[in-house]
Amino acid sequence: MKNISILGSTGSIGTQALEVIRANPNLYKVNVLTAQNNADLLIEQALEFKPEMVVITCQDHYSTVKKALPNVNVLCGEDALIAAVQLPQTQFVLTAIMGSVGLKPTIAAIEAKKDIGLANKETLVVAGELVMQLAKQHGVKIIPVDSEHSAIFQCLVGEEQNPIEKIFLTASGGPFRGKNLDFLSLVTKSQALKHPNWVMGAKITIDSASLMNKGLEAIEAKWLFDLQADQIEVVVHPQSIIHSMVQFTDGSIKAQLGLPDMKLPIHYALAYPQRVQSNFERFNFLNYPEFTFSQADTKSFRNLEIAFTAMKKGGNMPCIINAANEIVVDAFLKDQIGFLEMSDVIEACMLEINFIAQPTLQNYLETDKQTRIFAGELVTKQSLTNLK
Amino acid sequence: MKNISILGSTGSIGTQALEVIRANPNLYKVNVLTAQNNADLLIEQALEFKPEMVVITCQDHYSTVKKALPNVNVLCGEDALIAAVQLPQTQFVLTAIMGSVGLKPTIAAIEAKKDIGLANKETLVVAGELVMQLAKQHGVKIIPVDSEHSAIFQCLVGEEQNPIEKIFLTASGGPFRGKNLDFLSLVTKSQALKHPNWVMGAKITIDSASLMNKGLEAIEAKWLFDLQADQIEVVVHPQSIIHSMVQFTDGSIKAQLGLPDMKLPIHYALAYPQRVQSNFERFNFLNYPEFTFSQADTKSFRNLEIAFTAMKKGGNMPCIINAANEIVVDAFLKDQIGFLEMSDVIEACMLEINFIAQPTLQNYLETDKQTRIFAGELVTKQSLTNLK
Repeated sequence: MKNISILGSTGSIGTQALEVIRANPNLYKVNVLTAQNNADLLIEQALEFKPEMVVITCQDHYSTVKKALPNVNVLCGEDALIAAVQLPQTQFVLTAIMGSVGLKPTIAAIEAKKDIGLANKETLVVAGELVMQLAKQHGVKIIPVDSEHSAIFQCLVGEEQNPIEKIFLTASGGPFRGKNLDFLSLVTKSQALKHPNWVMGAKITIDSASLMNKGLEAIEAKWLFDLQADQIEVVVHPQSIIHSMVQFTDGSIKAQLGLPDMKLPIHYALAYPQRVQSNFERFNFLNYPEFTFSQADTKSFRNLEIAFTAMKKGGNMPCIINAANEIVVDAFLKDQIGFLEMSDVIEACMLEINFIAQPTLQNYLETDKQTRIFAGELVTKQSLTNLK
Repeated sequence: MKNISILGSTGSIGTQALEVIRANPNLYKVNVLTAQNNADLLIEQALEFKPEMVVITCQDHYSTVKKALPNVNVLCGEDALIAAVQLPQTQFVLTAIMGSVGLKPTIAAIEAKKDIGLANKETLVVAGELVMQLAKQHGVKIIPVDSEHSAIFQCLVGEEQNPIEKIFLTASGGPFRGKNLDFLSLVTKSQALKHPNWVMGAKITIDSASLMNKGLEAIEAKWLFDLQADQIEVVVHPQSIIHSMVQFTDGSIKAQLGLPDMKLPIHYALAYPQRVQSNFERFNFLNYPEFTFSQADTKSFRNLEIAFTAMKKGGNMPCIINAANEIVVDAFLKDQIGFLEMSDVIEACMLEINFIAQPTLQNYLETDKQTRIFAGELVTKQSLTNLK
C-alpha cells in the first residue's frame, strides 16, 4: 500500500490520478487532497477517498469545506501546502498544481524525503538546478508525469550506466500546425483551446497551441535528464502516439508509445518501478496506419525558440519566460491580447528583468514576482491599444 | 577486454561483427574464427585478428587454411565447432552460422558456460525449449542479434519484474509486399533476392520475401521471451525503422528504432549490458517523414501462417518446418521449384513427418534429417514436373 498526497486534486491530472487510485484500492491510499478554488469537487473527493488532511488554498472556501468535512483536518492558504506535503505517513507526493506556485511545496516535499510524481513542469522550468540538487541530496526520486518525460524516463529504465546522446521530444504541433504568422495573428481562444489529441487544462492547451509547452518541456527535460540544449530535438508528430525517444551513444533509439491518455503516465508514476495491469484502451496499429514527423516551425511559433534561448542562457531566464508566459496566457484567455502578442510580451520581459546567473530560491521567487508585475503592465498597455 | 569466438565469421553477420571488433580493439579480442567454405576470407580474417583457433568445416579446404596459418590451431569438420566453443578463455560465442547446423555448437557453448550472441535463429526455432532450459540451468545469457529480437531485448532491460502483455514484431514485408498469389507464382530468385531495406545472406533474404523469416522470428521470440503465440503480433512496417516493440500489462509500449543496419544489434550484443559509442550513421527523421503500418497478408504469404501453426502445435513441428524450409529455399535458389511451391513442400512435410510432442535432442536431430530427405524427394519430383 503506497500512501499518496495529491496537490491539485481537482485539476485535470488530479482527477485522473484519483481515477487510477479508485481502480487500484489495494495499492494506494490517499493521505492529502488539495485544491485552489473548486470546493465542491474537493469535498466530494474527500468524502470518497477519506484523506487525513485537506487543503483549500483560497481562503473564501475554507468554512464551506470545513463544515462539509467535520472529521478531516482542513487547512487553508498557500502555506498550508507546505504542511500538507510533510505528513509523516505520506510516501509519494503528486504535484499536480499548475504554475510556479508548485515550487515551494515541491521543495518542501523533497526536504521531507517524499518521492515526487512531478506533474508541475514549472517547478523544473523555474528552478531545475536547485530542485534536482535537493532531490539528489535527499535521496528522493522524481518521477515525471508529463507524457513526454514519462516516455523518456521509461526508456531510461535499466540504462542508468549508458549515457544519453540526445532525446527526441515529440510535439503534436497543436491545433495550428502548418499555419503561418498571418493566420496566427488572428486566432481566437476558442480555436486555441481545441487541441487535436489531448484533453488538458486551459493553460497547458494554450501553451500547446503556441508551442511554449514544448519549450517548457525541453527545459524540464534538461534538468530531469541532465542534458544540454543541443541534445534536445523537438520532432513534430501529429498523431501523438510516440510520446518521446532517447538516442544512446551507440546510435540505438528507444521510444515509448501509447494512446494519448494521461492516465498511462500517471499510472506508471504511481506504480513505479512496478508496472500494474490496467484496463486502459490499448493502442492498435490498424487505427494508426501512419505516423508522420516533421521539424517544428520556429519562425511562426516563436515561443519554442524563446524557450531554447532561455534554456541556453540559464540562470533565472527560464523563470522569467515562465512567469511572463503565465501572465500572457491568462490575458489571452481573457481576450486582452492576441496570440502572437504573447511572444512579444515574453521577449520584452527577457530584456527588461534583471538577469541573475546563479540564482538562489529567493532570487527565483523575486524574479517570478517582478516579471509578473512587468508582464502585467505590458498586457494592460497592449489590451488598451487593442481596444482602440 | 571481452574474449569472443565467432562461429560463421565469413558470412554477413560474421564479417559485420569483425567490423565492429576492428573499430573497438581495446574492448574485444577474437579467440576463434570458423567458416564453412570461404577459406580465402577466413585466412585473411585470421591474419588480421590473430585468433588462437580456426575451424574450416569443409574438409576440402583444410590443407589450404593450415598452410596459410602455420601458427594457429586449425581444425576441420563440423565436430570441430564443438571444440571451438569450449576454448577456456572465450567468454562470449557469437553463433552466426546459418541453419540448424548451429544447434549442436550452441548447446556445447551453453554447457561450457559461455554467453551467447545468438544470430542463428534456427537454434531456437528447432529446439527452443531445450536450449532456453539449458541456458537457465548453466546461468548463461542469450543475447539476440536479430534486429527484431535485439529490439525487444533492449526494451526489456530494467523491466525484468514487469510481465509482457504482447510484442509487436515488425516486418518490412519484403520485396513482394502488396503482391497477390498470381504475381507470386511467377517471381524469380533475382526478384526475391532484392530486399528493399536489408543487405543479408541469400537464404534469409528469400525467407524475408516469403515471410517465413518473420514466422521463424516469431518462434524464436516465443522462446527468448517466454511468450504464447497469441502474444505475438506481426506488424508490416515497410520503412524498417521501428525494429520491434513490447507492450506491458499497463498498456505502455516500448520500441527500439534505428537505421536498418545489422551492425547496431551486433554492437549491442557484444557490449551488453554497456552501450559503447559508435560512429554508425544516425537516424534522422527528416529522411523518414513517414512510418506506415499494416497487417501481414497471410493469404498470399502462406509461410507466415505455417510458422504460427507450427508454433502452436509445438513439439518437433517447428523443427520440421525449419528443415523443410532450408531445403526448399535452396531448391528455389537453384531454380528447381517456384516461389509458392516452397509452401506446398513445407506443408506436405508437416503432414508426413512423425510428430513428437516432447522431443529430445536426438529426436530433433532425427526429425531434421528425415524432413530434409523427404523434402528433398518432393523437390526432385516437383522440379521434374516443372521441367516438362
